[in-house]
Amino acid sequence: MLTHLVIEDAVRRALLEDCPTGDVTSEATIPADITGSVRLRAREDGVLAGIDVFTAAFRTVDPGIRVDAHARDGERFAAGDVLAEVDGPVRGILTAERVALNFTQRMCGIATMTRRFVDAVDAATGSHARITDTRKTVPGLRPFDRHAVVCGGGHNHRYGLSDAVLVKDNHLAAMRAAGLDLAATLRHIRSQIGHTTHIEVEIDGLDQLGMALDGGADTIMFDNFTLQDTRRGVELVDGRALVEASGTMTLDRAPAVAACGVDLISVGALTHSVRAIDLGLDWR
Amino acid sequence: MLTHLVIEDAVRRALLEDCPTGDVTSEATIPADITGSVRLRAREDGVLAGIDVFTAAFRTVDPGIRVDAHARDGERFAAGDVLAEVDGPVRGILTAERVALNFTQRMCGIATMTRRFVDAVDAATGSHARITDTRKTVPGLRPFDRHAVVCGGGHNHRYGLSDAVLVKDNHLAAMRAAGLDLAATLRHIRSQIGHTTHIEVEIDGLDQLGMALDGGADTIMFDNFTLQDTRRGVELVDGRALVEASGTMTLDRAPAVAACGVDLISVGALTHSVRAIDLGLDWR
Amino acid sequence: MLTHLVIEDAVRRALLEDCPTGDVTSEATIPADITGSVRLRAREDGVLAGIDVFTAAFRTVDPGIRVDAHARDGERFAAGDVLAEVDGPVRGILTAERVALNFTQRMCGIATMTRRFVDAVDAATGSHARITDTRKTVPGLRPFDRHAVVCGGGHNHRYGLSDAVLVKDNHLAAMRAAGLDLAATLRHIRSQIGHTTHIEVEIDGLDQLGMALDGGADTIMFDNFTLQDTRRGVELVDGRALVEASGTMTLDRAPAVAACGVDLISVGALTHSVRAIDLGLDWR
Amino acid sequence: MLTHLVIEDAVRRALLEDCPTGDVTSEATIPADITGSVRLRAREDGVLAGIDVFTAAFRTVDPGIRVDAHARDGERFAAGDVLAEVDGPVRGILTAERVALNFTQRMCGIATMTRRFVDAVDAATGSHARITDTRKTVPGLRPFDRHAVVCGGGHNHRYGLSDAVLVKDNHLAAMRAAGLDLAATLRHIRSQIGHTTHIEVEIDGLDQLGMALDGGADTIMFDNFTLQDTRRGVELVDGRALVEASGTMTLDRAPAVAACGVDLISVGALTHSVRAIDLGLDWR
Amino acid sequence: MLTHLVIEDAVRRALLEDCPTGDVTSEATIPADITGSVRLRAREDGVLAGIDVFTAAFRTVDPGIRVDAHARDGERFAAGDVLAEVDGPVRGILTAERVALNFTQRMCGIATMTRRFVDAVDAATGSHARITDTRKTVPGLRPFDRHAVVCGGGHNHRYGLSDAVLVKDNHLAAMRAAGLDLAATLRHIRSQIGHTTHIEVEIDGLDQLGMALDGGADTIMFDNFTLQDTRRGVELVDGRALVEASGTMTLDRAPAVAACGVDLISVGALTHSVRAIDLGLDWR
Amino acid sequence: MLTHLVIEDAVRRALLEDCPTGDVTSEATIPADITGSVRLRAREDGVLAGIDVFTAAFRTVDPGIRVDAHARDGERFAAGDVLAEVDGPVRGILTAERVALNFTQRMCGIATMTRRFVDAVDAATGSHARITDTRKTVPGLRPFDRHAVVCGGGHNHRYGLSDAVLVKDNHLAAMRAAGLDLAATLRHIRSQIGHTTHIEVEIDGLDQLGMALDGGADTIMFDNFTLQDTRRGVELVDGRALVEASGTMTLDRAPAVAACGVDLISVGALTHSVRAIDLGLDWR
Repeated sequence: MLTHLVIEDAVRRALLEDCPTGDVTSEATIPADITGSVRLRAREDGVLAGIDVFTAAFRTVDPGIRVDAHARDGERFAAGDVLAEVDGPVRGILTAERVALNFTQRMCGIATMTRRFVDAVDAATGSHARITDTRKTVPGLRPFDRHAVVCGGGHNHRYGLSDAVLVKDNHLAAMRAAGLDLAATLRHIRSQIGHTTHIEVEIDGLDQLGMALDGGADTIMFDNFTLQDTRRGVELVDGRALVEASGTMTLDRAPAVAACGVDLISVGALTHSVRAIDLGLDWR
Repeated sequence: MLTHLVIEDAVRRALLEDCPTGDVTSEATIPADITGSVRLRAREDGVLAGIDVFTAAFRTVDPGIRVDAHARDGERFAAGDVLAEVDGPVRGILTAERVALNFTQRMCGIATMTRRFVDAVDAATGSHARITDTRKTVPGLRPFDRHAVVCGGGHNHRYGLSDAVLVKDNHLAAMRAAGLDLAATLRHIRSQIGHTTHIEVEIDGLDQLGMALDGGADTIMFDNFTLQDTRRGVELVDGRALVEASGTMTLDRAPAVAACGVDLISVGALTHSVRAIDLGLDWR
Repeated sequence: MLTHLVIEDAVRRALLEDCPTGDVTSEATIPADITGSVRLRAREDGVLAGIDVFTAAFRTVDPGIRVDAHARDGERFAAGDVLAEVDGPVRGILTAERVALNFTQRMCGIATMTRRFVDAVDAATGSHARITDTRKTVPGLRPFDRHAVVCGGGHNHRYGLSDAVLVKDNHLAAMRAAGLDLAATLRHIRSQIGHTTHIEVEIDGLDQLGMALDGGADTIMFDNFTLQDTRRGVELVDGRALVEASGTMTLDRAPAVAACGVDLISVGALTHSVRAIDLGLDWR
Repeated sequence: MLTHLVIEDAVRRALLEDCPTGDVTSEATIPADITGSVRLRAREDGVLAGIDVFTAAFRTVDPGIRVDAHARDGERFAAGDVLAEVDGPVRGILTAERVALNFTQRMCGIATMTRRFVDAVDAATGSHARITDTRKTVPGLRPFDRHAVVCGGGHNHRYGLSDAVLVKDNHLAAMRAAGLDLAATLRHIRSQIGHTTHIEVEIDGLDQLGMALDGGADTIMFDNFTLQDTRRGVELVDGRALVEASGTMTLDRAPAVAACGVDLISVGALTHSVRAIDLGLDWR
Repeated sequence: MLTHLVIEDAVRRALLEDCPTGDVTSEATIPADITGSVRLRAREDGVLAGIDVFTAAFRTVDPGIRVDAHARDGERFAAGDVLAEVDGPVRGILTAERVALNFTQRMCGIATMTRRFVDAVDAATGSHARITDTRKTVPGLRPFDRHAVVCGGGHNHRYGLSDAVLVKDNHLAAMRAAGLDLAATLRHIRSQIGHTTHIEVEIDGLDQLGMALDGGADTIMFDNFTLQDTRRGVELVDGRALVEASGTMTLDRAPAVAACGVDLISVGALTHSVRAIDLGLDWR
Repeated sequence: MLTHLVIEDAVRRALLEDCPTGDVTSEATIPADITGSVRLRAREDGVLAGIDVFTAAFRTVDPGIRVDAHARDGERFAAGDVLAEVDGPVRGILTAERVALNFTQRMCGIATMTRRFVDAVDAATGSHARITDTRKTVPGLRPFDRHAVVCGGGHNHRYGLSDAVLVKDNHLAAMRAAGLDLAATLRHIRSQIGHTTHIEVEIDGLDQLGMALDGGADTIMFDNFTLQDTRRGVELVDGRALVEASGTMTLDRAPAVAACGVDLISVGALTHSVRAIDLGLDWR
């Protein structure tokens, strides 16, 4: 998912941001030939995401640094676990440390929260729902945020505006002004887009459901539906389209929504309001 | 602080990320010549940050869009307030919406949390402490995170590794191996760096305080000190250096620390664990 | 489809390639203040594509140049037709001319050839087939090649490796080694990818068809099938998936394939072997 | 000609275009540790160009892939020939395949067509003419197009607008308005440009020839001359300048033009209308 | 010569270098709405170069700034002359000032020194020599350095390694090892390169002159020749090639060399050792 | 100071500038497999700066080239000294040579001149002054110019507009218009900026000194003071701030200024008017 070209580019940019003209402190204090070893240790429980980014941060600063990962993306860890070992010139390790952690702590934060949602939903009776992300990611780091969601057991929604259709109120209003109802609008869109482009439509109430199905929507998003409407909607759709539940979704509410039989639950907070996981480097 | 060159570059990058080859939905449904008007409305209380970035997102997509800001960065707003009005081609407004909000909601989140810390600290008896950020920012968006901290009434710490010295354990250990104590280390650093480069040193206990002062530290960071030690440390420093309190800092704890008389309280969570403020676009 | 950010970036790159340090001929001969007017005239029949790129080339060299398009992307033109008028400083017009034409002649070439395929297929009895492009585009200009295909009445296939699944021999072989048959492979893929990601599978013979359907393929690609097998395949699929015909496709062969009832015919030659349409600038 | 910096940059850009966030199909089906081997095999006769670009595509995706070229740029190959062998991780090979082929098939197409022109011209009695390219290249890939022309036995014309003078109608008209005839114009240009900058002038008829020679043109371009005029022109020039024949040049016409004794024949179609050579990867 | 795309790119890069996150001093002291006016005044005599770059620096910081040039590139100025007037927001003027001057003072330095060489050489009896630059320019600013040389009345040598041939010792040695003498080497090169590519050869003594002419060199460089040898060489060449004199060239020596009848005198010091011209902004 | 990311980026840019599409001379004459060895030799005395940049130029062109440095940045060398040895493919060595020297000769020029100032000042009785650079650097190469100053024994001033405050006339004038005197202005600034941001103020006469001290300036710049005023000013400041002497500073004048007891002497000419040190590559 995260290609090394994408990782290298983002890491390089981050290092140039944090350290445009050298690490003045380390250069003044650490002889260039001193080597050392640190351990990346979890200070709280979580799910790992971004170990390749962590590695790239050190190795971009100094290819002489070696990073041995003790865990893989997607694995759970407990407070105290050693997740990786970093060996090499101390100067480079100190210079890269903050950038490495800034990426990894955010990504683990996303993966960990996603895992909690996925576990909560999986435990709900009758649920087969997936947890998905949204486009509410940090500008410039979308591939990283999305990868972290996958590490946490979630699934990705569309990447952005170019790779899938998501029809909302405003799109429908404009088409209605041109005399097309929802079903006609969806058919019009289908006639224009590529055959690999998925069509999802957001509806506000069950009254729009029939038209959405008639129009051939691939996925129907129930926006802020009550549980009762959600359950009824799933029955009405009856497998003819995927059903996505959306709206301010919490860990408390998600299992109940999942139990209604929806296919997808999208959670903006996975990426727009991330709590970094506490990770630290311990010198040996 | 945020120059328009920096804003343009980040906004352009974000738009290319979200919309690399067009907004397939809007292109299929919204005629190019339809214009409309939306209002940026707060859905909860907060502090504004990033209104220029919000504006740039729309105008980069389509220079024919006009954005009238109703508030300025740093101002408080209440749920329901209209913060800006956006007029122009509907297609472009829909295409830019998510990127505009992704920047602004994060920035308002940072500004709002900063404001809460600043207010809490200002209310503490005997406090004159500033709230500052750290280098725990999102990779690639440091200027945006830092600007938001200032909007919330906070102050910026050093930008990165190149513009100020921050001496920590590892630096001291390496110098100790070369026979220099803390005071000698600080003097050595001073002899090497430019005269505009600030020297800060992190200490773990009061026993290191004398050496830090002897070495001519500009700022001394008390890392995870008890309140008692903090108070005692401030007395001992007696204005000969600035004092920064650091360590996992919460809204509960900050006022008490400020009351000890420290000059600076740095809060990593301002930027590493941001909760986005709920803002939305209402169509008229 | 083609955003102005994408156009500007490619045009700027092309101008810097052709004219890195000025147009030595024009600078030595054309006074800076001479203005003039040229017409973009078709020297053969075709379909227009890239008029915005044509415009951007001139206006990037000199914002004082005005371009009035007389036709829109997707429209047919005949030899002799004036497609646009360009007015302004002669120097800038001469400097931009070649870059403007290099883009537009290629794009019109793609659109025109696509149009011929689309028309040929539309004329076939019983056809409802779409003509689609492939990933065989010129490196760096995929959005331009794809836009031209749409201008010619064609449709786009997946953008690249990241936005849709296309299962081929090698993927199946690797999964078979792990004990999964085609149907199981497709289900495994579905479990991993996002719900908006389309799954297409390429099959070499009708014996694989059942498994492809069982696995829930969205599209099944018939690779180099005989007309007889194609016809039989379409009957067997019976609307449960889209059917794409692929393999070296010519203008002669395409209508017969379309008449078999396939949904999609992909034509690599639309973009990998483009004949530029002859367009020229006539000075007035 | 093609430096590795230029190759790396274009290949990286092409890979990011085709595979911005990973190869979803291969990631879901091919275990990371499976290795394999493929052969690049010609499916038709041609001339090789771009083997270094082919190699770079694979090695940029995964430095663990090894590419052994069996032929060198400029060599002829026959249908069925193995041109290279690629060994390493199957995932990376599949990810890079299309980009590698997109570059190489186009470049071989250019080299092969150039070779046909060169051979045709070489076989003409009395010919010593070179085949050259023009500025009608694909935007962004000019160094690649030009390298391919050289691989086919052709020669490069000027790179672009900045490195040589090519005086055309419009330049002459502007100078005429200032009272300078063709000869005076050429002398004026010579006085302004660097001594390494070549001056070529395009003429429409033999009446302009004397002035072009008087003005000291290095090369005179005969634009759309009849064979008779071309022959007469070559006699009149008598070695005092190089003579280039230009105008819609075909494989049929070029030998006759060459037999007139011209030094150069430029062929826009070499690069503006390329037919890709059919190459494929065969798995072993 | 200097296109606005090249200027914009370099100016933008320079501004981001000098002012990555704002002008902290001006932001803290100058209200955003204060406007003012400054004059660019020469503090010593010189030749103007780079007025468009000067202008672009201010207008890139703030498009609201207006710059009125009072002189044009290539014009001489005297100490005290006003070269331009800058009006607009004071903040932006202060932010752009240093970058604007850094470009312009260097460029005027190059133009002024070039002018002195050109004037000195023009005054020499029998001279028709041009003063040319070399590749000894500041990395990244070659188009700017070269433009300044032209402003001073000089001419440009080849741009770099790709656009002209310059044969030196090492090239000859390698060819000699393959059995080719100088004349054969030059003919070999000619057979390979494009017809617009100039061939220059550097010789160390008059004994190589015959071979250079036999080989058809376009220009022959006399490297560190005595005046006597230079004079003799010019006679021997007798117009069959251009003659360039090179070697550590001073203002004292150049006229004597020019008087020998050489066509070109190249001066590395024009760009490798530049003395900035003293220019300043006077506030009104 | 100079990170390898910064070096690589600048070297790559410089190589693409000098050699965008290959070294036509070397490609036509030097077989790809010939290797050789050259020595970097000083042709005059100086101080070394930029040996890592020199190395990177060769290794970026061809990673098969090995560079062994015989000296380190900051070391003095004498005419004739061998500073490095370069071994590997001759083609690559020739291609990289000019770029390598362009960087290194300028950097050594800066270091050598800085060293002369530092030595001159160190020899002055009573001097403890540092020599510092200014923002008068070549656009795009500031990190290189600054590194060279450090190699020559100098110190760096602020990097640019964003990392330190330097209050000048115009800033004071604007604040005065708002009713603030110099002391109040400095306090206002202090309240706004980060605690690591240094405040320097430029004064024109001793009458402003008291206010500058009252305002808490970290450094006070004496702009074009007489020696007498400088001496008196140092006495008045009495260690309460650093004192910087500025104004057109020459090697003759600097020692006398230093003897007045100032802390800093800034010299614009170190970087705005650089004389390149003569270095050359000798083939073995």
